[in-house]
Amino acid sequence: MDGSKKIETRWWGWGDINKTYPVEERPEYIPFLEERLGIKVEKVRTPDPSLDEVELRQPRLSDEVMDELRQIVGSANFSTEKKDRVHHAIGKSYRDVIRARSGSIPNPPDAVLFPGSEEEIQAILAVAEKRGIAVVPYCGGSSVVGGVEPLDRDGFAGSISVDLRRMDKVIMVDAESLRARFEAGIWGPQIEQELKKRGLYLGHAPESFLFSGLGGWIASRSAGRQSTGYGKIEEMVESVRMVTPRGVIDTRDVPASAAGPSFKEIVCGSEGTLGIITQATVRVRVLPEVFDYRGLLFKEFEGGVQSVREMMQSGNIPETIRISDTEESSLALRVRKPSSNPGKEMALRAALKMLKLLGYSFHRGSFSVLGCEGKASEVSERIKALTAICRRNGALPLGKSAGMEWYRGRYDHPYLRDIMIGWGVMVDTLETATTWDNIMKLYRVVRKAIIEAIADYDSDSIVTCHLSHSYPTGSSLYFIFMGKQARGREIEQWEHIKKKAGDAIIKNGGTISHHHGVGYEHVPWFEKEYGPEALKALKALKESLDPKGIMNPGKLGF
Amino acid sequence: MDGSKKIETRWWGWGDINKTYPVEERPEYIPFLEERLGIKVEKVRTPDPSLDEVELRQPRLSDEVMDELRQIVGSANFSTEKKDRVHHAIGKSYRDVIRARSGSIPNPPDAVLFPGSEEEIQAILAVAEKRGIAVVPYCGGSSVVGGVEPLDRDGFAGSISVDLRRMDKVIMVDAESLRARFEAGIWGPQIEQELKKRGLYLGHAPESFLFSGLGGWIASRSAGRQSTGYGKIEEMVESVRMVTPRGVIDTRDVPASAAGPSFKEIVCGSEGTLGIITQATVRVRVLPEVFDYRGLLFKEFEGGVQSVREMMQSGNIPETIRISDTEESSLALRVRKPSSNPGKEMALRAALKMLKLLGYSFHRGSFSVLGCEGKASEVSERIKALTAICRRNGALPLGKSAGMEWYRGRYDHPYLRDIMIGWGVMVDTLETATTWDNIMKLYRVVRKAIIEAIADYDSDSIVTCHLSHSYPTGSSLYFIFMGKQARGREIEQWEHIKKKAGDAIIKNGGTISHHHGVGYEHVPWFEKEYGPEALKALKALKESLDPKGIMNPGKLGF
Repeated sequence: MDGSKKIETRWWGWGDINKTYPVEERPEYIPFLEERLGIKVEKVRTPDPSLDEVELRQPRLSDEVMDELRQIVGSANFSTEKKDRVHHAIGKSYRDVIRARSGSIPNPPDAVLFPGSEEEIQAILAVAEKRGIAVVPYCGGSSVVGGVEPLDRDGFAGSISVDLRRMDKVIMVDAESLRARFEAGIWGPQIEQELKKRGLYLGHAPESFLFSGLGGWIASRSAGRQSTGYGKIEEMVESVRMVTPRGVIDTRDVPASAAGPSFKEIVCGSEGTLGIITQATVRVRVLPEVFDYRGLLFKEFEGGVQSVREMMQSGNIPETIRISDTEESSLALRVRKPSSNPGKEMALRAALKMLKLLGYSFHRGSFSVLGCEGKASEVSERIKALTAICRRNGALPLGKSAGMEWYRGRYDHPYLRDIMIGWGVMVDTLETATTWDNIMKLYRVVRKAIIEAIADYDSDSIVTCHLSHSYPTGSSLYFIFMGKQARGREIEQWEHIKKKAGDAIIKNGGTISHHHGVGYEHVPWFEKEYGPEALKALKALKESLDPKGIMNPGKLGF
Repeated sequence: MDGSKKIETRWWGWGDINKTYPVEERPEYIPFLEERLGIKVEKVRTPDPSLDEVELRQPRLSDEVMDELRQIVGSANFSTEKKDRVHHAIGKSYRDVIRARSGSIPNPPDAVLFPGSEEEIQAILAVAEKRGIAVVPYCGGSSVVGGVEPLDRDGFAGSISVDLRRMDKVIMVDAESLRARFEAGIWGPQIEQELKKRGLYLGHAPESFLFSGLGGWIASRSAGRQSTGYGKIEEMVESVRMVTPRGVIDTRDVPASAAGPSFKEIVCGSEGTLGIITQATVRVRVLPEVFDYRGLLFKEFEGGVQSVREMMQSGNIPETIRISDTEESSLALRVRKPSSNPGKEMALRAALKMLKLLGYSFHRGSFSVLGCEGKASEVSERIKALTAICRRNGALPLGKSAGMEWYRGRYDHPYLRDIMIGWGVMVDTLETATTWDNIMKLYRVVRKAIIEAIADYDSDSIVTCHLSHSYPTGSSLYFIFMGKQARGREIEQWEHIKKKAGDAIIKNGGTISHHHGVGYEHVPWFEKEYGPEALKALKALKESLDPKGIMNPGKLGF
């Protein structure tokens, strides 16, 4: 199996197998959590789950079928190894980590295939249709909504995971039109590396950037750190190609069209239920000269939210603007790494005291990160004007170092989540979006719903929120929530919280997901949000492309 | 019948019944056309077609069915009058005008209904389903691709046109989130008037603006004059509501979502084939302080095209940038109204001579209009930077008066088309879009195809082109073409040209329509562009919402 440009990822949790979160360097964090959540951290590092302890169902496919599939991709690209099957059995949600740690992997794919071409994918789908095998498309595998998990569905002889990692070629770079076409199995770092060689840049960096890729982003309507400026992936995709059980869909590679409903926008968010995305053309930009990220501290969350709205409606839109609520701002300070230079650390503590005298505090205020990317001269002017908006709303600029500290750590927090799960912390995230007139209301009701749901399992909670992807008409809301794990009932507890939060979102004008997607975890609310007529119509469309229903069954409620 | 805020439009041609084009004030134009096309203009004004000369098929619906429909909307909003039926029988394309002038209206709707509510629309669709009646949704009726024409299809008892003009209420204006919700039958001027009262602005002004409306724009993926800055209608629509024969589709009113494929993007461009759009929320903006439009003259077309690309990729994107090729620039001068002030006119002619000495000529160069809208201070800075790009590419700024002359006349040219048709001129427009790397090639091959197709009918031609809706990755191309009418074979001649042009577009990487839509005129190329699998899937989706196929049969190839 190829795909050597990819880093190796954990089967039981987030990210790079060789990376972790240096929680030992954050002395305040554990005592704080222990006090707030009533937990007791016995060991900072709990042992990794062992593959040996996972009891895996035997592959259900016959030798004949296995041979048929093996012959399509070649032995080197066909695996029934335990490690591969477990790796492709789950995504990266809290539920997934809990199950992996307990060795409970009930529905692994029976085989994992690594096709190298569209023709191979077509052949795989033909065999899968003929043999009644469920097919789960797999790009980076970082879904936190169950998107890559084979589900136990009646009527299938088995399931296979189709991992696109070998299909990572650059097909075309058109610097004149600022667009580039890639195979869908290319991951984030490789995209940016290939573009950088040519002085170009995509600018799509979700938290999963290092181990997620183009096909997965499109299938789940992903949003990157800089989506406020550059748009979500669906706005970057100019055209897309998808192999379905009934043929190839190839949308027209033009900047805009009035030729009927947009099939591109049907493929975006289809989560593998219609076919396997094999290629896409994306809009790119000239590589920015500077990446300027700054910290700001607002006296309260509302001032931050107001500033984001003003920025978005001013026409001067930053690439990144994040506003944390007070709970999150306070938490940021608790998890901070003290400087190894004692003088520097003292100076910082003095500065924090000084801030307090000026009426600013991380424990009562709202921490914000403002980032602009582009030409140096333009960025500095834009930052100036945007900072002026923040100042008018009561913000104190904290300078570049606070912004760059966030920037450097931008991919790290999921590693901390996995460590915390080992401490007995129930910790997860969820996200939504709504219009500005509704944003503070939705923030309050969802936060309250989560706090109450955590209390239902006799736990105190930490519930934080930030705005990180904004629009002239509204913004996303991203919640992080923690409580004490209900031992033995971890998944029940978590489902309870998800239910209460999802209900609050749908009842109060939010969307069930702004960028994580639906998978199977969000199906009940997706059905409400989409409406029965639209869903029925979408199902009819799916049945036309996938009449046997082999494509990622159970996702999007199909 | 209500809808009094709307102006009365012609049944046999373009626009306001009380408006025309002051061609008499353009002395150069007729001699120029006579020479170039070998025509002889006998009368500047040919008489309007008379309704009396149209022989209309008797309504095919039984009295019982008529009564059923009449009862839903009330007698005042139900019409079988000849005038209403003819008016709703055709759109505004060259083919339509030719047929209207010859009194040939073969497939008028049997009745025209003006519903006042969604409930009435639901009741209409229920009767239509039960009785096997084709339903054509109608907003402003300005389609130039046959979108509002009832087609003669087997299996229907008759057809009705459902005109939304009474459904023109403002449902919600949310100045905080910069969005507004309207009923779909509201027309352009009323939208802007309602928004203006509140200091807001939509900024969607297609050439049909004065007599087209929200539902029609969405159904056909319309583009306004300022789409380069503000986006096409599908980018302005935040959510949409549509009544289908099988229930109501109501997309979530949020700024962005990852909850499955975008049904909004399925409704956009659906051209009445899925249901009737009844409401939409659109993104609005603060009313601009200034509307600054300027003329520029490039030495050649290529320099203009290069400038547009640079603008679009610079991040400083004008609301409007139009670049005419040489043929169009030259034509603009021919159709110009000389100043009534002889001194002014002499000065202008002197200026044109001076330009020539500097190497600039409308007859060899490329005329351009650059428009920015917004705050005065920002607009002036933006115009300055954009003009600098043009200068670097060899442009000479002609100042505001040249820009404002274009701006004032921006809705007038279709009136001239109708007059020219009376002179025996075959005249129409078509449009496409492609990426920058392909733009000059597509321009050349489509232009050549049109010229050759016109020559096939023994006529000289005038074929002009402009870029008017641009993107960082590419642009639209808009062609105007003229020849001598092949008398008695007008429609055959025109179909020949459309075929050659459509073939050239699809063969060379364009889209069959950037903003006119598909209707029935573009069906053959739409099918090629969309691809058989996507089209089949879309048909399945349609059948789910409209199992009897009553919604606008024949459009989009359904």
